[in-house]
Amino acid sequence: MKLPVRIAITGAAGQIAYSLIFRIASGELLGPEQPISLHLLEVSAALESLQGTIMELEDCAYPLLQDVIMTDDATIAFSDVEYAFLLGAKPRAIGMERSDLVRENGKIFIEQGRALNDFANRDVKVLIVGNPANTNAYIAMHSAPELEPTQFSAMTRLDQHRAFNQLAIKTGVEVTDVEKVIIWGNHSSTQYPDIHYATVNGVPAMDLVDEGWILNEFTPTIQQRGAEVIKVRGKSSAASAAHAAISHMRDWALGTDQWVSMVVISDGSYGITEGLMYSFPVTIQNGHYTIVKDLDIKPFSRERLVQNQQELEHEKDMIMDLLA
Amino acid sequence: MKLPVRIAITGAAGQIAYSLIFRIASGELLGPEQPISLHLLEVSAALESLQGTIMELEDCAYPLLQDVIMTDDATIAFSDVEYAFLLGAKPRAIGMERSDLVRENGKIFIEQGRALNDFANRDVKVLIVGNPANTNAYIAMHSAPELEPTQFSAMTRLDQHRAFNQLAIKTGVEVTDVEKVIIWGNHSSTQYPDIHYATVNGVPAMDLVDEGWILNEFTPTIQQRGAEVIKVRGKSSAASAAHAAISHMRDWALGTDQWVSMVVISDGSYGITEGLMYSFPVTIQNGHYTIVKDLDIKPFSRERLVQNQQELEHEKDMIMDLLA
Repeated sequence: MKLPVRIAITGAAGQIAYSLIFRIASGELLGPEQPISLHLLEVSAALESLQGTIMELEDCAYPLLQDVIMTDDATIAFSDVEYAFLLGAKPRAIGMERSDLVRENGKIFIEQGRALNDFANRDVKVLIVGNPANTNAYIAMHSAPELEPTQFSAMTRLDQHRAFNQLAIKTGVEVTDVEKVIIWGNHSSTQYPDIHYATVNGVPAMDLVDEGWILNEFTPTIQQRGAEVIKVRGKSSAASAAHAAISHMRDWALGTDQWVSMVVISDGSYGITEGLMYSFPVTIQNGHYTIVKDLDIKPFSRERLVQNQQELEHEKDMIMDLLA
Repeated sequence: MKLPVRIAITGAAGQIAYSLIFRIASGELLGPEQPISLHLLEVSAALESLQGTIMELEDCAYPLLQDVIMTDDATIAFSDVEYAFLLGAKPRAIGMERSDLVRENGKIFIEQGRALNDFANRDVKVLIVGNPANTNAYIAMHSAPELEPTQFSAMTRLDQHRAFNQLAIKTGVEVTDVEKVIIWGNHSSTQYPDIHYATVNGVPAMDLVDEGWILNEFTPTIQQRGAEVIKVRGKSSAASAAHAAISHMRDWALGTDQWVSMVVISDGSYGITEGLMYSFPVTIQNGHYTIVKDLDIKPFSRERLVQNQQELEHEKDMIMDLLA
């Protein structure tokens, strides 16, 4: 049998983790032949509740699950891991300014970036889900100078799935008929869901929908979908976020010919400031992503790309002193 | 592409369903080539909260998920379904006698049995998870005279997984090294987890553990595990129950050479009253289970088998007038 692959999950007692852990343990990430070990990280106060999750993991008798480590120490959690799902982040408390939120999370992701730098497998792939995801990823990346910046990513895959689904509903097709929808920029309500290159059964999406729908329905629906789910569910998205996280990491590990959206370090493509963590369309081969190049960006899109860039630069300014 | 298979899930806004639905939609039940339709049943008061789950299902852009029906009408929920996961049941309210609980649930499962009888696919496989699971299954089965009694089952698979895991821990092996552990009887704390025929890497388990451990640790641990999880987690088992439900139904659909435990109608094997819904070891080929026969039952085991039979006959007596 193969040696187990070590997988870290932070915020392991949270709702997204509860939807994610059992799917990874069943083989949905790396397939039915790959044994795994789970490294579950939580703050000390949540370890007791995490113990319940571990009992349930035992009670599944998963054939692939070799062992489970539970810890509040990032250096243990990240030891030798090849995949790291960073779900945990400090939520916004009442009366807290956004800048305070960004800075509070900054401290967490500096610590986690350092621990990844010092203890993770040298080929580790890191996915940041906890918000503000792009900036948290920026901080973790900068705190891990011995890892490649391209080993860090943040998640816009849930937004991408939402955009695929809305376009499929609008055009009356299956989601599998839709291709090349892009999420650009920041995983915030500023994000730009872009269907200018999308096809529906091979037909350009732009020939099938009108601009009024894009502006007044599609775009705000995607941007506000998270808030809408909270309104209906009374809780934030968990199972759909977990599904997006598996999809993101599985495609990164196993490759895909489709365009998928990932927050990755900008190489200056499309004029986006080099070094910024920004969501781009990518394709993936052999565990390495490549930003889709040379798309013709119209002024309508350019404005939105720049708006996202500015928002991310502003977030970066809030935390630059922490990285000094 | 294949035609979709229709799958019903009751108690669809509950915690087990939230852990189950997204795994089924991703293909974990019937594989990555089989499109599915989900029929989600809930009581009227829970439909609004279920709407949140449906939004999240949309937001997953699942390639296999053809459509989702949400309803409070069992006749719609069970129309043409090939698999039915009956998770929903009335929980015990404060001050409620057990007999009241059994009878309250009786009414639900009469209605659901009738709807299955009248509207489900003629080859439907039914799994009852909601407690009291054996007796609920007995009621549903008797309310569906046009279906075969062998199309109804209830779940002891979670108990089986727990027993596999505890024996693996005790003997220091992987769960995949363990075989032929049996859960007999009622899915209640009376259940009898039996390792008399079990092997660990081919060695009889009875040669590896002593009777004191079986009596004083193993048996009560399995019987009380559900309560223990509630104590630690603050909530009842959800993800592990969902995993057991998928395992039960997948093995039933696709077959297994292993012994697995299922609550099915007794054919009189081991002296258990014919017609009672009772957990036996079974093997499964071509979608049909066969009770493992001719095991040598020692007096120690016999006593426990009879105890379970008596408990189930007592539960049956509480509801027989409802079936008249």
